[in-house]
Parts: sequence; C-alpha cells; structure tokens
Amino acid sequence: MSDLHTMIDSEKLLYDTIRPVTWQDNGVRLLDQRQLPSNEVYLHITSTQALYAAIKDMVVRGAPAIGIAAAYGAVLAAQEAADDALVSFEEGFHRRLDFIASSRPTAINLSNALNDAKLVSEPQKQLLNWAHDWFKDDIAANVSIGQYGAQYFKDNIRVLTHCNAGALATGGYGTALGVIRSAYQQSKLTKIYATETRPWNQGARLTLWEFEKDGIPATLIADSVAATLMQKGMIDWVVVGADTICMNGDIANKIGTYSLAVLAKHHGIKVMVAAPTTTIDANAQTGSDVIIEYRDQDEILPTHYTDNAIDALNPVFDITPAELITVIVTEKGVIESPDASKMQALIKPIR
Amino acid sequence: MSDLHTMIDSEKLLYDTIRPVTWQDNGVRLLDQRQLPSNEVYLHITSTQALYAAIKDMVVRGAPAIGIAAAYGAVLAAQEAADDALVSFEEGFHRRLDFIASSRPTAINLSNALNDAKLVSEPQKQLLNWAHDWFKDDIAANVSIGQYGAQYFKDNIRVLTHCNAGALATGGYGTALGVIRSAYQQSKLTKIYATETRPWNQGARLTLWEFEKDGIPATLIADSVAATLMQKGMIDWVVVGADTICMNGDIANKIGTYSLAVLAKHHGIKVMVAAPTTTIDANAQTGSDVIIEYRDQDEILPTHYTDNAIDALNPVFDITPAELITVIVTEKGVIESPDASKMQALIKPIR
Repeated sequence: MSDLHTMIDSEKLLYDTIRPVTWQDNGVRLLDQRQLPSNEVYLHITSTQALYAAIKDMVVRGAPAIGIAAAYGAVLAAQEAADDALVSFEEGFHRRLDFIASSRPTAINLSNALNDAKLVSEPQKQLLNWAHDWFKDDIAANVSIGQYGAQYFKDNIRVLTHCNAGALATGGYGTALGVIRSAYQQSKLTKIYATETRPWNQGARLTLWEFEKDGIPATLIADSVAATLMQKGMIDWVVVGADTICMNGDIANKIGTYSLAVLAKHHGIKVMVAAPTTTIDANAQTGSDVIIEYRDQDEILPTHYTDNAIDALNPVFDITPAELITVIVTEKGVIESPDASKMQALIKPIR
Repeated sequence: MSDLHTMIDSEKLLYDTIRPVTWQDNGVRLLDQRQLPSNEVYLHITSTQALYAAIKDMVVRGAPAIGIAAAYGAVLAAQEAADDALVSFEEGFHRRLDFIASSRPTAINLSNALNDAKLVSEPQKQLLNWAHDWFKDDIAANVSIGQYGAQYFKDNIRVLTHCNAGALATGGYGTALGVIRSAYQQSKLTKIYATETRPWNQGARLTLWEFEKDGIPATLIADSVAATLMQKGMIDWVVVGADTICMNGDIANKIGTYSLAVLAKHHGIKVMVAAPTTTIDANAQTGSDVIIEYRDQDEILPTHYTDNAIDALNPVFDITPAELITVIVTEKGVIESPDASKMQALIKPIR
C-alpha cells in the first residue's frame, strides 16, 4: 500500500469529526462556512429571524445541511409561537416556518424539512426529538452512501472530487466525501485530488479544510488541470455529489461537473454520483426540466470593468446526462448505468 | 447582423491600439501587466539590470512580447558596454545579453532575439533599427495571422478564447486575439467568450482589458463553464495561441487548453491555434518532448493550509495533441488537420 495510509480496515467509522449544524444551549449552532478555511467560527442562532439570515447569507450551505438547520429552526419557531400572544400557536408556528422556507426557495431539503415539521404532533413537546431524528437520519444516509460507494473501488485508486459534497454540506460525513472517507479508511486510495471549484472555491476553501481537519492527505488543482491529470493516467474515478437527480438519471450539480464527466468519458475514467434519495426530484423527467440558477456576475468579474460591453456569465449548476455517469450511489442502493426504468425501480419502495 | 457590431468591413486595420513594449526616451517602455486591469501603468526601463527584473517579475509576459523587450534591451546593453571601461565592447555587450537571457530561460523568443542581436554588424549604430524591425515584424506576423484566421469564420460565429494570446503577449494586435480582432472588424462575430484562466486569471485581467480598451464586447466565464456553453450549442470555434508547436502538430499552451480541445471534440466544435512560426520548436518531435513547467503551489493554495498533507499541483502548460486541432494558423500559412508532413512542408521555406 501507499504511504498515504496510516489506517487499516476497521469496523469503527473514522474521519467523522465535522458537524456544521447542531442543537446546543437551546439554539442552532452553525459553523460559519463563509469564514473557512481561515477561521473556524460557530454562530449561536436563537431566533427564526437570525436563522433566516444565516441561511440566506450562506453561513450554512449544501441542501442537506440547510434542511437540518431548518428542522432545528422549527423548534425555535414553536418556542416563539408559544410566546406570541397575538395569534394562535398554529398560526404563529406556520408563519415562522414559511418565513424560514423563503430564505433559499430553491433548496428542496429546506421546504421538505419544514413541511414535515408541520405534521409533527404535539410540536412543543416532540419537535426537538423529530429534529434530532432528521439530523441523525441524514448522517446515517451518508454513512451508507460511503460504504456502498467505497465498494466500487479496487486498491490503489486515485480519485478526483469537485466542489464540496462533504460533511459541511450535510449533517456530517458527506456524500461524495463520505465515499472518499470510507475508501480512505479501507486503505483503497493512493491519491485524492480536489478541484478549486470556481468561482466560489468550495474545493479550495471547504473540501480541503475537511481533509485537513480529518488528517486525510489531499491535493488541490485548478479546475482546468483535471484534463491533464486524466491524460497522464493519474485519475481512476471522479466522485461528485448532486443537487438534483432526475427521473432518467440525469443530474444537476455544481458548475464544472459536466465538464469533468465529458473529460472522464474521453479518457475512459469512471464517474460516481453520490447523493441521498432526498435529492431525487420526481417532477424532473430529464435534466432539461431543471432550472439552472445564474448568480451575479460580480462573483467572477473583476471590479475594474464598468463598461456594459464587458460582462460575465455565471451559471451555478450544470446538467450531466445519465449516459456519462457510471454509477449513482444512494443510501437505498446503487444504480449502475442509470436510466429511467432503474430510477423508477429505486424510488418505488420509497414512495 | 447582430447588434454586437458597430463596424463594417474596411481595408483599414482597426482595434490595434495596445503596445505593451515600445522604445521611448532612450529606454524600454513597458506596460506593467501585473497591475492590469485596475491600473494602466507604464515603466520606463533604462538599464539591462532593470529590464532583467521586469521580465523576471512578469511586468511583461508572453513569449513574443518578451522577445521584443529583449531586442530593445540589446540596445541598452550596447550603450552600457560602450561606457564600460573594464572589458572590451564585445565582451561587455555579450555579457549583458546573456544576463537578460537568464531572466526567463524557457521563453524561446527571448534567446532567439538576443542571439540574433549578437549578429548585428556595427551594433552601436544599427541595433536600434534592428530592434525596431524585430518589433514591426512581430506585429506584421500577427496581422497576417489575424487575416488568415478570420477567413475560417463564416457569419454569426461565437468564439471562445483562453488565457491571453493578445496584444499584451506580443508586439501588438495578438495571435488568437488578432484573429478575433480581424473577424470582429469583418462583422463575423456575434459573441466572444473569454475564460477566466485560473490560477493567474489572464483572461479576466488581460484579455477582457484588451477588449474593453478596443471597445469589443466580450463575456467572461469561469473555465469550467466552457463545457456547458458547448453543450447548449453556444460556441462555434475555440481560438487559442501556443507556447510551442511541435513537429507533429502537437502544441503546448496555457493549462486548460487541452481540456477545451477535448470538450470541443466531444461537441463537434472547431479548434484554431494561432501562433507565429517562431513558436515552432524544430527539436520537439511531439508534445512529449516539451517540458511542462510547474509553478509554486502558493499560486493556488489558500494561505491557511500549512499541513504538508494538504498541497496543490500547479502545472503551467498542457499538451494538446494534433488530432484535436482543426487548424494551425501562422503568418506563413495555415495547416489544417496538422501532422508531421504538413509541419515539414511549412517550415522548409523558413529554414
């Protein structure tokens, strides 16, 4: 084995040290991801107003992590509603849940969690346990994804990951990074590359921070270096997360994922998409049904340019068609060479 | 025609306004490219020592532009040698030329210019005219490349360029950007995209600055967005420069070029490489003969990471094989579907 490893196989789950969202001292404790990797600062959120701002301002990001923050936010909403003399408990509670939901309207997990919160009976008594379950279920899903995904790797594997589909984007452990953590624990990996992930630098700022935190060696590259590594035979698997999985196996993920998938195909390299089944959008038949968000051009355009003739195009996500994906790994099972019928078979027991 | 254009066809060369290296007030006037696009500052270089530092510190970059700076530097070297009482003129002159050559040992045009300077007869009298010729020949080559290249474009073409192969990298007008300038003047272009070009941001800093300067509309994208634009059918040609052209038609160019060429092939998009014949390395039979420079990881790795387990890999160039190139455009002619025999035919009259 490579000297990359100091670990041996173990039943115990290792490299699971990061919790971006927890409940503490009657509030939501959020790791402020805007300040990583320079500063590890936790914010203590004790009102629905403050939670709304924290989600909107990207203190917490990543759909599953936002979902958990919202679940704990429901606990705050119930507390505030109980003290609200102006309206009934239910009205005050639902108003606050809807307010939290409006912080990031496109994050599916956010509204899923808050809609689920409305169904909890005896909310003032039961909501905290329900939120803890939401939190624990997400981590358990990631651990399962990690184990299923790592089974695909032989020994001496070199992986490349993009963006941050890690502990920071989830309750903990991560999806793509959960697979990498599991495979690393099993001593199957000889090299881990992380793309910078322009223009937000989630790879450089968040993924590398996770690896440093867990003592897992990793190497940063500019996004455009991936092709050269593939050309030189230095990559075996591309492992990414997903923001949406469509009913034909197409996926939406961070901008740059499609580029890596095409390059992987050209070089005969395998592509793994790791995501929980909550990422499946039953209303999206194909990738063309997914609305791609475009963010402000100031995220990439130097401030110098004020002439309107010079601008920037800044899409957040791209669509990777199913035929470029080797395997989709979920907590309920894996789908090799995904297509519509295999997707139907996977979600049938869930529905 | 698109409203992108305010121009009509004209015999007059337009959009040729930038001169990064000129001779002025008995010195070399260099546009400080480190400060672009925020500040347009020119340095006045009056000694070989200062010129050495300016080339080494990237005040001027781009092989042809460095070659011109060195040619004018030879004039300074002759002046200093004439005043140097310690050694003969020839010894003092050659010493200073060799000193300038050591500033960027891998830039071919640098040593080409300085070796040529040693052959000038009556150097103290003739060198300035010789340097002016070197400067003018480079611009003339770019104008020819621009015209040859633009002939390949039909109407309503959308181009994507990478890095900066523009006026700033040459005496003026540029190679890839010379082609784009010519085609824009001929009203053939409806859209120009420029990649950011990580990690040095030459696209965002230099290429966009050139377009702004010349009033040519252009749109910046993150490097990884190129694939999405191709997927959506928004690109017709990829137009790039070259740092080395090998004898089989392989090229070395800024990191990310190979990635774009593979993506272009996947999407049926054409790839043009625009470079003067001085970029041909007769000693490089294929791309594997080219030594790829790796720069310091600090150019991409956030300063936070001090643990040796977290590092970065930072190659400057990549190799694009000939089979991914639609056409190589030089000032001596074009080579479609480049291969070794076509390369031989091109350089025969030059040798």
